[in-house]
Amino acid sequence: MRLWHNPASPFARKVRIVARETGLLPRIEEITAMVSPVSPNTDLAARNPLVKIPALETNDGKVLYDSSVICEYLDSLHNVERLIPSDAARWDALRLQSLCDGILDAAVLCRYETFVRPEPYRWNDWIKGQFTKINNGLDALAAEAPAWGAGFGIGQVGAVCVLGYLDFRFADENWRASRPRLAQWYTSVVSRGSVTATMPA
Amino acid sequence: MRLWHNPASPFARKVRIVARETGLLPRIEEITAMVSPVSPNTDLAARNPLVKIPALETNDGKVLYDSSVICEYLDSLHNVERLIPSDAARWDALRLQSLCDGILDAAVLCRYETFVRPEPYRWNDWIKGQFTKINNGLDALAAEAPAWGAGFGIGQVGAVCVLGYLDFRFADENWRASRPRLAQWYTSVVSRGSVTATMPA
Repeated sequence: MRLWHNPASPFARKVRIVARETGLLPRIEEITAMVSPVSPNTDLAARNPLVKIPALETNDGKVLYDSSVICEYLDSLHNVERLIPSDAARWDALRLQSLCDGILDAAVLCRYETFVRPEPYRWNDWIKGQFTKINNGLDALAAEAPAWGAGFGIGQVGAVCVLGYLDFRFADENWRASRPRLAQWYTSVVSRGSVTATMPA
Repeated sequence: MRLWHNPASPFARKVRIVARETGLLPRIEEITAMVSPVSPNTDLAARNPLVKIPALETNDGKVLYDSSVICEYLDSLHNVERLIPSDAARWDALRLQSLCDGILDAAVLCRYETFVRPEPYRWNDWIKGQFTKINNGLDALAAEAPAWGAGFGIGQVGAVCVLGYLDFRFADENWRASRPRLAQWYTSVVSRGSVTATMPA
């Protein structure tokens, strides 16, 4: 299988963590791709019309996206403990993944607004609106984290990618300050092999 | 169950079509909510920290999001033909749903850029970049549509929501002009009960 990714992409990181947690990494070639919302990568566009990473080419030549579909596909290929439950716990795990994806969508939009968009076109109310989503989402994660225990499923993979991305791109926001329990949880997982191997730098 | 939606939201429409296709509508109360990327709806925020629609409150009081999670949850509650296959066809169906969601993400961002954002802060390269995604995505749908036959699964639900949204918000773009086979497919499904009942107007 071939995975188009970029070390800075938090959505691609979800897949790269799943590949490592499930022991599938030796079967995956990781291909670094540069993407931009204003100048498409033509090599990637030939595979994913949305020109987004991550994209996974399977061994039968199909291309899968987005990150949640790729994570579930990989999770179906191994025999260790599933990251996405198939019993009643499934819905809460998928909801938690969506919460993390939504925080990341807002954070990536803020990154585009404050870094890619030329300064005269930046709109403060937009940034404020996205940060409201980010902060409300983080508060929800902080409220849930104490119940996670030592579990490390798809929702926790998402949470690692959220918190790692905020440290990477928005360190000044200091998400830990008002969320000690979430910070404590992050400390408990940050030295995990799949997490350190995929840390953006 | 209670579904927070808005008749103009293409993501909420996916769920509303699934509710009708699966016969679950009598078990769902549809609640109209106004949302804006810059002024959060507090009633909705109490349920979904991302303050996004659709959000579904289940009968045991949990709240699920986003649209793909809600659609899969509803699809697990009925005994007619599944909209999301559980065999090998699953991955292509989920990939197609993600393609449609990605086109919609780009279209909604264009709507925000050209309608919500004050004019001095609009950036043409951003709009152009999102329209490249939309048009490449539509070309991919047009290439795939002839193979869909009479099938109407989660990918086709997504395609209906994409094409209906473009007609609703970007009629001038005339997506049909260069895509007669996609237009032909849309004509074949547009009078379906679940589609007419949820048409944005």
